[in-house]
Amino acid sequence: MTFSAKRHAKTIATVCLSGTLDDKLVAAAHAGFDGVELFEPDLIASTSSANQVREQCEDLGLEIVLYQPFRDLDSTDPEQFRRNLKRLDRKFDVMAELGAGLILVCSNASADAVTDLDELATQLRAAGDLAQRRGMRIAYEALAWGSTVNLWQQSWDAVSRADHPAVGLCLDSFHILSRSSALANLDEVPGDKIFFVQLADAPHKDMDVLQWSRHYRLFPGEGAFDLTAFTKAVLKAGYRGPLSLEVFNDVFRQASPVRTAIDAVRSLEALAADLDERRTPSRIHAAFIELSVTPTNLASAERALTALGFSRAAKHRSKPVAVWTQNDATILVSVSTDAAEDDSTSIAAIGFETDDPSRVAAAAEGLHVAALPRVVRPGEADLPAVAAPDGVSVFFVSADRDPLDWRRDFESEPSINAVFDGGISGIDHISVTAPFDRYDECVLFYRSVLGMLTEEVAEYPGPYGLVRSHLLRTRDSSGFGVALDGPLLRRGRWSPGVQTPQHIALTTRDIIGTVSKMSSDAPMLQISANYYDDLQARLDLTDEFVSTLMRHNILYDRRAGGEYLHAYTTVIGSQVYFEIVERRGDYRGRPVADAPIRMAAHVAARRGKATSNSVPPSG
Amino acid sequence: MTFSAKRHAKTIATVCLSGTLDDKLVAAAHAGFDGVELFEPDLIASTSSANQVREQCEDLGLEIVLYQPFRDLDSTDPEQFRRNLKRLDRKFDVMAELGAGLILVCSNASADAVTDLDELATQLRAAGDLAQRRGMRIAYEALAWGSTVNLWQQSWDAVSRADHPAVGLCLDSFHILSRSSALANLDEVPGDKIFFVQLADAPHKDMDVLQWSRHYRLFPGEGAFDLTAFTKAVLKAGYRGPLSLEVFNDVFRQASPVRTAIDAVRSLEALAADLDERRTPSRIHAAFIELSVTPTNLASAERALTALGFSRAAKHRSKPVAVWTQNDATILVSVSTDAAEDDSTSIAAIGFETDDPSRVAAAAEGLHVAALPRVVRPGEADLPAVAAPDGVSVFFVSADRDPLDWRRDFESEPSINAVFDGGISGIDHISVTAPFDRYDECVLFYRSVLGMLTEEVAEYPGPYGLVRSHLLRTRDSSGFGVALDGPLLRRGRWSPGVQTPQHIALTTRDIIGTVSKMSSDAPMLQISANYYDDLQARLDLTDEFVSTLMRHNILYDRRAGGEYLHAYTTVIGSQVYFEIVERRGDYRGRPVADAPIRMAAHVAARRGKATSNSVPPSG
Repeated sequence: MTFSAKRHAKTIATVCLSGTLDDKLVAAAHAGFDGVELFEPDLIASTSSANQVREQCEDLGLEIVLYQPFRDLDSTDPEQFRRNLKRLDRKFDVMAELGAGLILVCSNASADAVTDLDELATQLRAAGDLAQRRGMRIAYEALAWGSTVNLWQQSWDAVSRADHPAVGLCLDSFHILSRSSALANLDEVPGDKIFFVQLADAPHKDMDVLQWSRHYRLFPGEGAFDLTAFTKAVLKAGYRGPLSLEVFNDVFRQASPVRTAIDAVRSLEALAADLDERRTPSRIHAAFIELSVTPTNLASAERALTALGFSRAAKHRSKPVAVWTQNDATILVSVSTDAAEDDSTSIAAIGFETDDPSRVAAAAEGLHVAALPRVVRPGEADLPAVAAPDGVSVFFVSADRDPLDWRRDFESEPSINAVFDGGISGIDHISVTAPFDRYDECVLFYRSVLGMLTEEVAEYPGPYGLVRSHLLRTRDSSGFGVALDGPLLRRGRWSPGVQTPQHIALTTRDIIGTVSKMSSDAPMLQISANYYDDLQARLDLTDEFVSTLMRHNILYDRRAGGEYLHAYTTVIGSQVYFEIVERRGDYRGRPVADAPIRMAAHVAARRGKATSNSVPPSG
Repeated sequence: MTFSAKRHAKTIATVCLSGTLDDKLVAAAHAGFDGVELFEPDLIASTSSANQVREQCEDLGLEIVLYQPFRDLDSTDPEQFRRNLKRLDRKFDVMAELGAGLILVCSNASADAVTDLDELATQLRAAGDLAQRRGMRIAYEALAWGSTVNLWQQSWDAVSRADHPAVGLCLDSFHILSRSSALANLDEVPGDKIFFVQLADAPHKDMDVLQWSRHYRLFPGEGAFDLTAFTKAVLKAGYRGPLSLEVFNDVFRQASPVRTAIDAVRSLEALAADLDERRTPSRIHAAFIELSVTPTNLASAERALTALGFSRAAKHRSKPVAVWTQNDATILVSVSTDAAEDDSTSIAAIGFETDDPSRVAAAAEGLHVAALPRVVRPGEADLPAVAAPDGVSVFFVSADRDPLDWRRDFESEPSINAVFDGGISGIDHISVTAPFDRYDECVLFYRSVLGMLTEEVAEYPGPYGLVRSHLLRTRDSSGFGVALDGPLLRRGRWSPGVQTPQHIALTTRDIIGTVSKMSSDAPMLQISANYYDDLQARLDLTDEFVSTLMRHNILYDRRAGGEYLHAYTTVIGSQVYFEIVERRGDYRGRPVADAPIRMAAHVAARRGKATSNSVPPSG
């Protein structure tokens, strides 16, 4: 490829952001956008005149690259078409005041849409003549729900038949990818006939495409569409205009526009890095998890780690931090004295090993991720770190014995705990609760800054509401996972569950061996006997196997290709717990159907209710 | 009709309610349900054994009327079908412990579903034999997304071919009404072959039926389905079993189960009243609105009312309440000294005139609506009142000169304000903000307690997020409306708009006359010039008409059959404003597309920003 994404202006439609037009423009400029698509309803509601908006944009350094949308231009009724042209001419008046030269005309979605493509081309040509007289241009777009034109190929057919210098195409990734229309022949379109490109990602949704488009769009890299391939195709076709975001999203509409705009520009920077093949190195590897505990929870955390077979291997030279290890699993336990925080026992940090920590940290800053200040004493490693939007700190460390080796800050100590190998071999994943307004930003963070890939998106019912889950994994062979969990709806005042649960899932190759070695007072979570009864009915397992699982409070799931056996500890402090996981065969993702069982068991444990595992399963 | 809805047990599926199984059972019993459908995942997650659940239900006076769901019974693979029967037999073990005798088997939604109806009937018969041996019965239900069976007629076909005493039908209103399947021939089904009836309402949604069913179901009377006709049909067919609610709803899943259960039982009571033709009298008529103002806002409220042409006509004999009138519009202004409330300037009450206030109040109590305590002095009217779930008090008053005539508490006074008739003739509607968790409960309240009918359901974008709106209207000729507005998503911490806006919309037959009579310092809201520019472009109006509208800050909408002209005041206190409305022709509903314009203008007024109406619209 010879193109560079850097050459293209980065712009955003005002409809992506919350607030009045003033708020939106200020936020877009603050985030560093080069310009905006002016969404007409934002202008109409604004108390600023078109002239005032032009001046404000000039002051903010924003170009108005597109005025949009103009609906239902063509008509089967000549008189109506005449009125539509008059309406278009009035919009050109407004655009002249705004200093905007390009208008988006979307395909007619009404019953009055012209069905004959030659007639449509004739009407587009008439509109093009009008535009040309006014010094304007028209970008014609196929809405996915247009009456006649709903595929980009049809819009190109109409535009090429119109054959007018002032009439070109607008390509919107949502309208194209939501219909799965092939991009293969996009390079047949001359680059200079693509007047505008709008980028939006989206999650997979089995729903009406109009509702999907108007409520669930996401910034590139936050959803399930391949925006890199899409953008590559339009750039390859020779498109030279802005890369512009047009995202309708219910959550973004009510979130801080300043934050949303920064998230938006990050999505374009990450896309540009992908296009220019400046990817995050795939060699990134999770080296440790840091658990921050309150002084009162320290003893329970240490008891749990010891019960699981961890040993305290080293302590920090100057801070109250200890390293606990077991084979390839490393957990730092730091004592937090921040009494202001209720939930201050939490997963505080992830340490990622990489060949060049400083370069990865610099790339993160290029993605508008804030670097974390570090207090470093003489002789200590000065580790670059950034803040993930879920509140976890991400450290970049080196595997080599260099100044960025975090291990140099610790001195090993003869273990003060009884040492046994529980068979824990590493960390499968952690889960954290993503803040409601920043869920999609979290997904983009892990994908763009750390190059992680989505393994599974799921939804499950908890006792106090539905939960959504997005599991991402690093590309290295050990495949460390981060699961972003969060309520499907923002919680209200009535909210009796754990607000922001977090957990660390530890890998074992033999879970029955691991739990058998544990002492009887290990803080393992008791699972309902009803679960085992149903498990046996569902999966037709042997009595012996089910009673082994039940005796050890192990949950079980089977999918084509693999099995997943797992057990939990009770909650340490108010939100953190451990999971022990054995994956057999090729089991990808997590058994989310087991989550409600675990959650109900945690509620019962919290309420101090005895479980009834003494009752054997029927059969 | 000779049936009475009162004869049927009222039951609820545990999946309707939030919490653990314990929480759900306690809430159902507290609300007065006779029994529950036990949703299997609730039992499986529970730490109580089946025996313990049976005992708990007995203690609570709840019968377990159904165990559900059993999925994918039939199979094209005989070996798989044998395993499915074994699984069913294990569930009969659980049911025996629970003391439950009826299981819901839903139509197979997998690729393995039997397609031949005779073969399906054979398998159902085999399952019926097994059930009969265990003293159990099977209610077979057509899921709307079943592979072979997805209409109730198909499920009846299968059940009648199976011809087994232990195999009958389960009819679920959602699965039937979501597919619009005709109910006409339901009376061909013998009543004793309808083993179970599940009731759920739902809003109209253009979406995948499975997602619609699993996320958006509502209690009867809260959605768009005709549950009265449905229930009438099943009762007419001779069904004798429980009327049972099965509602999957994302909001209810995370709301207090105690409140939800009361809302649920109210929906069944209201349905029963409809079926037994014990309806709310249609003669209910809005007599007054009470505006409660803080002492600091009193002057602005009085200034606004005076500017609109209201006169202070009477004052309360013992309380700081004044009556302001203009033709048939009556607004009580009471001074609240409750300094604890930030938003204590608010719509405090609606007074409804009816022939028999005490009977209507008693009917409301029958619907589990809490009566409000009243402090009544000697000689004052003791008006029955109830609390609407949106926080407004609803008073029931009499039109006659009897002890329930509220007017007796007031003495008229020579108006202290300049009197002019602004042409306001009545109250078109009020709008209030429904609490997020209680939105659907509010709809049911106004429908069931006051017999109001839905006029329009809509959604519109505000500057800080999407808003949904549900307009209900009384059945009397004056047709008083209550619009329930509220954010589509629960608001988070970043929430700069007015949290709980409310307004009073006043009727005029000549809005231009009304606003022309106002003094120049009337607190009218200035509307953006851009709005008028677009209005003219959209609707092809004359320059003269548009400039009249603009001069008076009047918004305009046109629909087939009618026009809607309206103007607003600025906000009094922190949340209340007035609207003046002229409906021309037959304009139903509200012009929700104008709402964003009004909201942006209110934001600008709040920020003290001058509008630019001095700039004439182009053209």
